Amino acid sequence: MRFCEVSSRPKRFVHFYPATVVVIGVYAPGGRANFMPAVWHGGLSFDPPLFGVSVSPKRYTHGLLKEAEAFSVSMHPFKQAEQIQKIGTVSGREVDKVAALGLEVVRGRALEVPILAGAYAAYELEKTDRITTGDHDLFIGRLRGLWEDEAAFAENAINPGLAPSLLYYGRYRYGRPEPEVLDLEGR
Amino acid sequence: MRFCEVSSRPKRFVHFYPATVVVIGVYAPGGRANFMPAVWHGGLSFDPPLFGVSVSPKRYTHGLLKEAEAFSVSMHPFKQAEQIQKIGTVSGREVDKVAALGLEVVRGRALEVPILAGAYAAYELEKTDRITTGDHDLFIGRLRGLWEDEAAFAENAINPGLAPSLLYYGRYRYGRPEPEVLDLEGR
Repeated sequence: MRFCEVSSRPKRFVHFYPATVVVIGVYAPGGRANFMPAVWHGGLSFDPPLFGVSVSPKRYTHGLLKEAEAFSVSMHPFKQAEQIQKIGTVSGREVDKVAALGLEVVRGRALEVPILAGAYAAYELEKTDRITTGDHDLFIGRLRGLWEDEAAFAENAINPGLAPSLLYYGRYRYGRPEPEVLDLEGR
Repeated sequence: MRFCEVSSRPKRFVHFYPATVVVIGVYAPGGRANFMPAVWHGGLSFDPPLFGVSVSPKRYTHGLLKEAEAFSVSMHPFKQAEQIQKIGTVSGREVDKVAALGLEVVRGRALEVPILAGAYAAYELEKTDRITTGDHDLFIGRLRGLWEDEAAFAENAINPGLAPSLLYYGRYRYGRPEPEVLDLEGR
């Protein structure tokens, strides 16, 4: 491996990819649904169940999340790659993504959140915190409603053969996991 | 999809997987290297470059990270699955993982951090913050040293054909990405 010291923004910051692409859903004031794909995300606590998404203040969605009391995060199969890429390349500041891209919206049941249809799992999250970290804000939400397609799971793990997740490699490159699973439980 | 309301810890919290398994490296006081795999991690800022890992206070590594001024995070190929599973199932509280598992350690060059050998990329991170989120702490580090195997990347993205990352699905299930990439740049 090659080593280099880093003093400012590195040429690329993708070494920890692939990451699943989750889609953030949030209502704008007035009730218009807005969606944004995000790959900087993750679990932050089991009990209470907390999930975080990191969003740049440059994004239109950032302003909505800042004002909102709740947002959704949904997980999608590889076959939605082109739709989700489009969701990420137009801004809700300029267009109504739902109308422009013909998106189907599922209404939240625990909270006032829009959820992008086609997901195999989704979280309805009550916003509990916003933490500034450098040039992004980490929005933290507490899980209040859970949607899941039973067929995507096996033994309480994601089954990539049943749920071929949309993975992101950086620079608009996408892929999917191999269907095989290596089970090391008890090893 | 099936919906359920969530009031406490859900049965499973793996819907956003697969995630790459990164290995956290940190020196204990006295200089013993310790490693722990983590799947709750992600980018938090481009400029300055910040990366976060979420660790439970129950873990031995948590106490080390709390005291340390720096830590490493390394990214590994699928073929290291069994070694990394073992690193995650023994505790540094009871054994010297490096000696017990015969681990090879690379010394950091920008910071005083140990790095697990075999990685295709690694970050040397200066700890900048620790934020409690529910039952975990998010340790944030600023990238000061970058290791990368040029062969793992293409067009500033991870190339899964060249770097078959170790993916985690929950419950000790591991896998890898398919080698094919869908390039949607400009779409």
